[in-house]
Amino acid sequence: MTTPAPNPTIRRLDVASPVPADIDIANAVEPLHIADIAAELGVPPEHYDLYGKYKAKVLLSVLDKLQGQQDGYYVVVGGITPTPLAFLDKKVVTCVRQPSQGPTFGIKGGAAGGGYSQVIPMDEFNLHMTGDIHAITAANNLLAAAIDTRIFHEASQSDKALFNRLCPPNKEGKRRFADVMLRRLIKLGISKTDPDELTPEEVRRFARLDIDPASITWRRVMDVNDRFLRKITVGQGPEEKGMVRETGFDISVASEIMAVLALTTSLADMRERLGRMVIGNSKAGEPVTADDLGLGGALTVLMKDAIHPTLMQTLEGTPVLVHAGPFANIAHGNSSIVADKIALKLVGKGGFVVTEAGFGADIGTEKFMDIKCRYSGLTPQCAIIVATIRALKMHGGGPDVVAGKPLDHAYVSENVALVEAGCVNLAKHISNTKGYGVNVVVAINKFATDTDAEMEVVKKAAMAAGAFDAVVCSHHAHGGKGAVDLGVAVQRACESQAEPLKFLYPLDSSIKEKIESIAKFYGASGVEYSEQAEKQIEMYTKQGFSNLPICMAKTQYSFSHVPSMKGAPSDFVLPIRDVRASIGAGFIYPLVGTMSTMPGLPTRPCFYEIDIDTTTGKVMGLS
Amino acid sequence: MTTPAPNPTIRRLDVASPVPADIDIANAVEPLHIADIAAELGVPPEHYDLYGKYKAKVLLSVLDKLQGQQDGYYVVVGGITPTPLAFLDKKVVTCVRQPSQGPTFGIKGGAAGGGYSQVIPMDEFNLHMTGDIHAITAANNLLAAAIDTRIFHEASQSDKALFNRLCPPNKEGKRRFADVMLRRLIKLGISKTDPDELTPEEVRRFARLDIDPASITWRRVMDVNDRFLRKITVGQGPEEKGMVRETGFDISVASEIMAVLALTTSLADMRERLGRMVIGNSKAGEPVTADDLGLGGALTVLMKDAIHPTLMQTLEGTPVLVHAGPFANIAHGNSSIVADKIALKLVGKGGFVVTEAGFGADIGTEKFMDIKCRYSGLTPQCAIIVATIRALKMHGGGPDVVAGKPLDHAYVSENVALVEAGCVNLAKHISNTKGYGVNVVVAINKFATDTDAEMEVVKKAAMAAGAFDAVVCSHHAHGGKGAVDLGVAVQRACESQAEPLKFLYPLDSSIKEKIESIAKFYGASGVEYSEQAEKQIEMYTKQGFSNLPICMAKTQYSFSHVPSMKGAPSDFVLPIRDVRASIGAGFIYPLVGTMSTMPGLPTRPCFYEIDIDTTTGKVMGLS
Repeated sequence: MTTPAPNPTIRRLDVASPVPADIDIANAVEPLHIADIAAELGVPPEHYDLYGKYKAKVLLSVLDKLQGQQDGYYVVVGGITPTPLAFLDKKVVTCVRQPSQGPTFGIKGGAAGGGYSQVIPMDEFNLHMTGDIHAITAANNLLAAAIDTRIFHEASQSDKALFNRLCPPNKEGKRRFADVMLRRLIKLGISKTDPDELTPEEVRRFARLDIDPASITWRRVMDVNDRFLRKITVGQGPEEKGMVRETGFDISVASEIMAVLALTTSLADMRERLGRMVIGNSKAGEPVTADDLGLGGALTVLMKDAIHPTLMQTLEGTPVLVHAGPFANIAHGNSSIVADKIALKLVGKGGFVVTEAGFGADIGTEKFMDIKCRYSGLTPQCAIIVATIRALKMHGGGPDVVAGKPLDHAYVSENVALVEAGCVNLAKHISNTKGYGVNVVVAINKFATDTDAEMEVVKKAAMAAGAFDAVVCSHHAHGGKGAVDLGVAVQRACESQAEPLKFLYPLDSSIKEKIESIAKFYGASGVEYSEQAEKQIEMYTKQGFSNLPICMAKTQYSFSHVPSMKGAPSDFVLPIRDVRASIGAGFIYPLVGTMSTMPGLPTRPCFYEIDIDTTTGKVMGLS
Repeated sequence: MTTPAPNPTIRRLDVASPVPADIDIANAVEPLHIADIAAELGVPPEHYDLYGKYKAKVLLSVLDKLQGQQDGYYVVVGGITPTPLAFLDKKVVTCVRQPSQGPTFGIKGGAAGGGYSQVIPMDEFNLHMTGDIHAITAANNLLAAAIDTRIFHEASQSDKALFNRLCPPNKEGKRRFADVMLRRLIKLGISKTDPDELTPEEVRRFARLDIDPASITWRRVMDVNDRFLRKITVGQGPEEKGMVRETGFDISVASEIMAVLALTTSLADMRERLGRMVIGNSKAGEPVTADDLGLGGALTVLMKDAIHPTLMQTLEGTPVLVHAGPFANIAHGNSSIVADKIALKLVGKGGFVVTEAGFGADIGTEKFMDIKCRYSGLTPQCAIIVATIRALKMHGGGPDVVAGKPLDHAYVSENVALVEAGCVNLAKHISNTKGYGVNVVVAINKFATDTDAEMEVVKKAAMAAGAFDAVVCSHHAHGGKGAVDLGVAVQRACESQAEPLKFLYPLDSSIKEKIESIAKFYGASGVEYSEQAEKQIEMYTKQGFSNLPICMAKTQYSFSHVPSMKGAPSDFVLPIRDVRASIGAGFIYPLVGTMSTMPGLPTRPCFYEIDIDTTTGKVMGLS
């Protein structure tokens, strides 16, 4: 790896107007073989594994190879996959999340981008990809099965019988602890390594996890929109002897294991994080971990391929690293640290990494800065805030937009006043993001019905709020070429950035202080804790977990907890309904109001249109 | 593709004695790059997709390329992965099933074979592989979610509202049917294609599936041993408005979609089979299919990569096609038709395909012949029956063998009488298998404690029962070299085979007649149907499904339904507890006694030993 070369092979797109359906655009382009993309990017063949012709896992080993390389510029952006910088002859990698299959077949459709700004092949991107989410589902549910089964076995066996089964004597009558058991012994403060030396009391403490069923926070997951699994009763078979329990399924991307994947920095770090995930408490109030259940190693084995990010491409043939997929409302909403780190080395000095943070600056960007950058040690030089005229009109008081219903007239004809009124929302996103010490560039995502006068209002408001620049983009209609101005602005913003990253809160303040910092950042006048939230905060503090960052589970539709409160509201008290913890991933997550962790299917889900041409093998109807 | 070349690159194994742990043997060998295996086998690069360095999906397109090629010999074998024929300079491909991850982490461990007869890399073989089982899980559960959600939506909407949502007007106020809806219209005998022309009665019939919740046979699945999901209640969340329902999860390999994958012959065929899977009945007693729910296409899209078999290798570097993984007791227990077809073309005339049928001749082989060969049109020339001295001693009346407990003395020292008594079981397997018109070769799988006198007894009994040959093998201790005699015998058996395949029953006999043919084959004196079974047989007959083959769900431990009935029992009446149907896969499956479709975890599951070396990335403790 010598000096990074520019990206010479940008595919020039033949764009049509009006913009055709996403799958038609995607199907019209023959993707490059991913080995060509890898070669162009300078990934040596021994550091990637092909998954078919259009996907490759870039192995973490490439980081060792490139450790002498300087990082490129680091740019964070909300929710789109732009490729403008490649048009400026810069080496650029885009880092995005893997989409969940739930929405793909449900109401939202795929997440490959749209129009002439897509990740391709879009069917491979939206379905299975390289199996990472499936690995998460498998690991999450193995842990869930182990929890219920352990409670079941403990209920029917004496301490001695349990111990005998956990450490059975071999043919010579000798017992040994499995390696993972030594971790539990250390946690219990037992320094013995010979099972035969344990006292009966130590045998009891070791063998009996004594999980309090009411304290279990670990739920099963599925990458399907299955609303009937939100709340279920398990254990109703006759062989489970009446040990029924109320629990439920979340969508897989809400699993803590997804958060671990997104925040881990190495295989060894992932092993530790998975092992220390807390699934609930013992009846004495002590946290019970995956390692206590003997599973930290097995979970890591299930996740060993998932830790490597997947290389794909945009329509224009520029490289995209796809990795991890936590939702931004119910989880931390950013793609992975390892993908960003690899990308920064691959583009090298003067190159650019554009990484996606889901939704607005209240959600994705806040979590990007205070959680992801805190764990990665990386500092962004620029944050792109994407604005659309339609969204600003909604924030300015325009009528509701309902999926499947025709758009109100306000959104398809000029209405400068509505846009102007909505800019208060954009201004708050800008000033909040600037607070982290990064330059903010506003990208106004232009659609066909938006007018110049509307654009001008937004530009002016953005600059007034402190943006470094504000530019109009049309990549949806024109591909990367439609966003060259944005590329120029981002480059200037990165080159002129000098401030260090300023976090919103220090880690050593209390859980409540941290929650209140974020609430203030949202614009709230205060915070209100439910009794349950108070209880949980007290418990996590007592358990020694108060020094973790905070990951708010909050609606993406408003700075507040009320989706209909548009603009930049300030007269609300943020209600904390419950507080949970992802100890392995490394954050406390307060639930702001009611957030569903398992979507449902509508009467006519997307799947009605999805089929395959059995002659060509092409997927049809994916949106 | 010209004349098939012999297999020149057999790796000569340095064997140790006693045989080391499976994972240690596997880790000591550096696998060949799978592209080398593919090249050797004559698979052109455009007809396979790499999945990492050691796995490749062989694309079904290779069948078109090789259609002029003659098939090789087709050999069916129970439960092992021998590679003897490669030692005779024959081109050979072994076809095996993908293991379920449930047992890998549960009580049984992996399924890569054992000792010096393994598929490698064994961690990649046992975990995720190329994601086929995960695709099945995803597809199965999307269908399950669609069922409950559809009932929910139908309960709260008028016919007109339902129809409006299913066929919403576009911007111009025009409605259209999705392609999959046209299938439902045809089924209903409605020949209209314009939604606006349907009468209110047709609207009702089209839009209202009117599923009878009590009739639903479609369950959710998970590839985890989670006993607490065997029987559950779903829909207990407040938003599901009291629409609770009792259901349960099976292990993923028990999904009908797994059976479809194993029995399909092309992408187009899979699309049809998935669409016609029956999930239950309408309240009027009509079968409701996946296509009625709008899902046949989407399920095919989810399964489009899974249809291609995965190429891997044995320890000795010979090619293995891994595909599908139905259990042999609760499902039809054979690897896929497409894998076998591809393999037969790849080895070509004079080459050999050895395909695995799970468990004994009562289970795997019967289903291989009467279901798999019936759908594939392929004819085996030879069936290998694997016998072990230990199993024959059990059938001769030896004490129970319990996993985890030391073996009884009877099994580790010579006991010719016990072996002799057990041969009645082997003899029945031989005569039953011979009945299909194939030559039977008995492979006596030799372990260290087995004696020559014991072997002789088995050989004699096998020849007396009509075996073509009976040979001692030691591939567990010596790799393929330990099974050269078997190779010679199989080759002779194939070359001298002339009879056509004789099925056990014709398809056009009644469901009961077919069940009774199989019961007789087991040795039963009769069949006893529960009231529920009678009801189901009557229903399936009325629905027009009586012409399907039968797939018995029965214990593998005995010819009978009672695991402890060893030898060749004949004084039992086979109880049919229930009868279900896999209409898409294409069989009726009677449940003989109680068969669990979801295993559990023991107190100390295999996962305690499984971990990863975070420096080398090597998996440890997999067995």
